[in-house]
Amino acid sequence: MSNFVRRIPEGPPGGDDRERLVCADCGYVAYENPKIVVGSVVVEEDRILLCRRAIEPRHGFWTLPAGYMELGETTEEGARREAWEEARARLELDGILAIYSIARIGQVQIIYRAHLSEPGIAAGPESLDVRFFAWKDIPWDEIAFPSVRWALNAWKAGHPGVAGNPVEDLRGVAGL
Amino acid sequence: MSNFVRRIPEGPPGGDDRERLVCADCGYVAYENPKIVVGSVVVEEDRILLCRRAIEPRHGFWTLPAGYMELGETTEEGARREAWEEARARLELDGILAIYSIARIGQVQIIYRAHLSEPGIAAGPESLDVRFFAWKDIPWDEIAFPSVRWALNAWKAGHPGVAGNPVEDLRGVAGL
Repeated sequence: MSNFVRRIPEGPPGGDDRERLVCADCGYVAYENPKIVVGSVVVEEDRILLCRRAIEPRHGFWTLPAGYMELGETTEEGARREAWEEARARLELDGILAIYSIARIGQVQIIYRAHLSEPGIAAGPESLDVRFFAWKDIPWDEIAFPSVRWALNAWKAGHPGVAGNPVEDLRGVAGL
Repeated sequence: MSNFVRRIPEGPPGGDDRERLVCADCGYVAYENPKIVVGSVVVEEDRILLCRRAIEPRHGFWTLPAGYMELGETTEEGARREAWEEARARLELDGILAIYSIARIGQVQIIYRAHLSEPGIAAGPESLDVRFFAWKDIPWDEIAFPSVRWALNAWKAGHPGVAGNPVEDLRGVAGL
């Protein structure tokens, strides 16, 4: 990007009212928007699928199968794609477990409940290992991100309805 | 953007596997991601708040108070901000009503149930008019977008849980 400056774009009354990245030459506005992460708590016989990360950040730590939603897919398709990419798992989704806002890094996480639609898991290229954990065996000290803990606890709590950020971090300051 | 080409970015094994906008000079990757729309079905005494659009697209048609989520805010903050900008309404949110994927245009809509936290509404700069409608008075022929109809119907159906795309349009081909 050659000549981008931060300013309020010109436009009709009632248009934009905050600074954007605008090309000083042509006026092109490069909007920066929050990104969507889609993922799943995949459960088989009360055990939960976790993936050990083969990539940074948090290489070697355990996470849920989850990642950035892509253009052209639905949230459900994205959650299933990520489970395939990271754990070679084919999922059936069972509704939304949680929606988290991580405002600090401009992220919204949409986490589904899910189970395997066919047997078998294996580490994909972004995972060192994939494994189903009983609740008592979850490696809490090696969990990659706060929101993974939030989602695991939301699943364990078993409430109907959709969980949100925990009350101690409503804006997602703890970050992903 | 001066020298962007569409190609798979170079990176470590297990990295990216699809074409992105990459600067041919420096390798900067301009990821294009789905955008998040946050909005609300605001109900007072069984009447629903609609806003008549003062902007394109669909100038003059009725919509829910909703718009693009901004960086640095939570989904809840975004939904409340949009209600203020479009209808000068202060909201209390009552949980998530629906999540819609409009894959055709790379959009995810998160729609809350809400009511006014203080009395009074007025047209903001993006609205020609704002009004509470009884169900029988909703101007169905002048509704701006399919997903507005979906959300109104989801509210009327009154199910607990979160509504998703209607079965006849699971991927959001009908568009916003």
